Amino acid sequence: MSLTKPTDFTIGILGGGQLAKMTAIEARKLGLNVVCLDPHENAPASMVSYHIVGSVNDKEKLHKLNALSNVITYEIEHINTDILKEALPQDKVFPSIQVLETLQDKYKQRTFFQKFNIPMPKFKEVKSLQDLKDCIPCVQKAKVGGYDGRGVVVLKKEEDLEKAIKEPSYIEEMVEIEKELAVIVVRNLNKDVKVYPVVEMVFNPDGNLLDYLISPADIDEFTSKEAQDIAITAVESLNGVGVFGVELFLDKKGRVLLNEVAPRTHNSGHYTIEACETSQFEQLVRVLTNLPLGSTYQYLQASTVNLLGEFGYKGKPIYENLDKVLSIDGVYVHIYGKRETFPLRKMGHITILDSNRERLLEKTVKVKNLIKVKGEVKI
Amino acid sequence: MSLTKPTDFTIGILGGGQLAKMTAIEARKLGLNVVCLDPHENAPASMVSYHIVGSVNDKEKLHKLNALSNVITYEIEHINTDILKEALPQDKVFPSIQVLETLQDKYKQRTFFQKFNIPMPKFKEVKSLQDLKDCIPCVQKAKVGGYDGRGVVVLKKEEDLEKAIKEPSYIEEMVEIEKELAVIVVRNLNKDVKVYPVVEMVFNPDGNLLDYLISPADIDEFTSKEAQDIAITAVESLNGVGVFGVELFLDKKGRVLLNEVAPRTHNSGHYTIEACETSQFEQLVRVLTNLPLGSTYQYLQASTVNLLGEFGYKGKPIYENLDKVLSIDGVYVHIYGKRETFPLRKMGHITILDSNRERLLEKTVKVKNLIKVKGEVKI
Repeated sequence: MSLTKPTDFTIGILGGGQLAKMTAIEARKLGLNVVCLDPHENAPASMVSYHIVGSVNDKEKLHKLNALSNVITYEIEHINTDILKEALPQDKVFPSIQVLETLQDKYKQRTFFQKFNIPMPKFKEVKSLQDLKDCIPCVQKAKVGGYDGRGVVVLKKEEDLEKAIKEPSYIEEMVEIEKELAVIVVRNLNKDVKVYPVVEMVFNPDGNLLDYLISPADIDEFTSKEAQDIAITAVESLNGVGVFGVELFLDKKGRVLLNEVAPRTHNSGHYTIEACETSQFEQLVRVLTNLPLGSTYQYLQASTVNLLGEFGYKGKPIYENLDKVLSIDGVYVHIYGKRETFPLRKMGHITILDSNRERLLEKTVKVKNLIKVKGEVKI
Repeated sequence: MSLTKPTDFTIGILGGGQLAKMTAIEARKLGLNVVCLDPHENAPASMVSYHIVGSVNDKEKLHKLNALSNVITYEIEHINTDILKEALPQDKVFPSIQVLETLQDKYKQRTFFQKFNIPMPKFKEVKSLQDLKDCIPCVQKAKVGGYDGRGVVVLKKEEDLEKAIKEPSYIEEMVEIEKELAVIVVRNLNKDVKVYPVVEMVFNPDGNLLDYLISPADIDEFTSKEAQDIAITAVESLNGVGVFGVELFLDKKGRVLLNEVAPRTHNSGHYTIEACETSQFEQLVRVLTNLPLGSTYQYLQASTVNLLGEFGYKGKPIYENLDKVLSIDGVYVHIYGKRETFPLRKMGHITILDSNRERLLEKTVKVKNLIKVKGEVKI
């Protein structure tokens, strides 16, 4: 049955951060109702949706969300799936709770994809200190709870063992990374699949921090096709229904390897709002309402600069040089509306469009150097 | 002073319809707060903003709105400006209450623009029945309250006098219309001006109903420039600050004539959301927050089909063939979220993009024929 009464249809979202906010905006454009469940009073999505204040692990609040929703999705992965299974009807949740369970434990995720022969770095569970010693040089990763580079440690020599992760973890071969890539894949209940262009994540050589994302990636078309195919295969092997952010490595030997899959809209797909025929958020809404998937055609080359809280500040955020960046053509500022900043907190992002690659890069650097998220309190 | 703390800044909007909703969405993207004042419990903008339920002519409610807002705008013109002047600080309202006053009375508007030598159809106030008799054939227009073709009567012969408007009115020469055009003009406190491409309003030959809008209009570049220049002159002569929808006629002699100016975002500018570098709604937000105006560059040709309630239905709206129209590439559906339909009520709009004019027209006709807004109750 296809949607004919959007004003009677409600999308429930576990979590009320920026991903929920941007999804809700697309849902609102179609006249749909949205309710989010988030513990923070001023969660970004609360601007544009009905907000239940509470934890995503609180059964009573989950019941309330369920009572209001025709369909439920989530924008975060750190949810207790046992509680979800008890509190929510499983056929109402997309991507399925089973998919979430497979993906939220990164080791489980690796073993799952291994069965489908998806190319990945070699990996092995850590059962003892000896396992770690034997593998050096290698990368150690926490099974759960990693996010934005946290939960990952590079072990190059014996002394690095001091900073080894104590929680359940696994080790991976040290991949000689040429580029880090990402692909958004959308898949619906009819098993239709749409894939977006490959994005390149450009890191600052000084630190391990993401500098900007650029789409399409600066890779040849065979590599691009290979990355998209791996991403699609990963989502299909999960029988995933929803929007998936797939991160990959291109190594120095030219191999494309799956890094990880997130069962949700993804930072690497934010550029699709302005640059593509259908955004990743609209696609999610289409999946959840059983409307046909949209074209992923990219109109113009795009980059994304994340707005992270500067070091040395907390408290109410101050966005410096908003006026200067908005005076540049083809610049789209997204401020999530978080009431407090702290170092490296994701406070917003800026998408930059241009038909010319060189100009796009120039504008990106200019924007990156201008915009600063400071705070009212120095720390 | 330029905006640095969007989460501390609130835009107040008189009216909570679709124009307020689309403005609020752009404001939310920038992390701003929005409050609207509208008498309807489920007003479209209430989905994405804080909503004060009440009349825009209710002083107490206006005080409440004012207390919450850093700046105030309006999405409707039928507001009692005497009450506004008493209830609101005049320097906080954009466009100014004076501009609203000049424009909401169509006769006052005409006499104002006449002083600036802006080309218009010849017009004259109606003071007696004789005035009407003498002018036939002519067009009679109500001074206030006209909207979407209401408040306009064509008097071709003596018998038509039966349907003449009884309220205060004026008459206009019968212009032999070749095309109806519209232009969006944006102007800020620094007197910077941006103008969008000229849009053509295509009417159904069977009735007087707007069939679709297309941008850019199918006119030569001189006519286009003339229309834009007239629109800019009109807004500058008002010293207008805000977004203005300017409607014009191109007559069979090739004259471009001003029809009317609305001191707000306009149906003819909805296409800018998807087709232009900066949408009319984002421009309004930029004006209200004193951020620099954005580029009006149009990426792709666009058409807009309005979703009007079908004749014969009322009650809860049913949107037929949503799935079919969304399976066409480059189609963007906006459903305002009104809880009740009635014949000709504006329930939403659809923007269609294409780089090829012929394909754009084909898609437009296809969408127009597919989508229907029916209702749960037959009348």
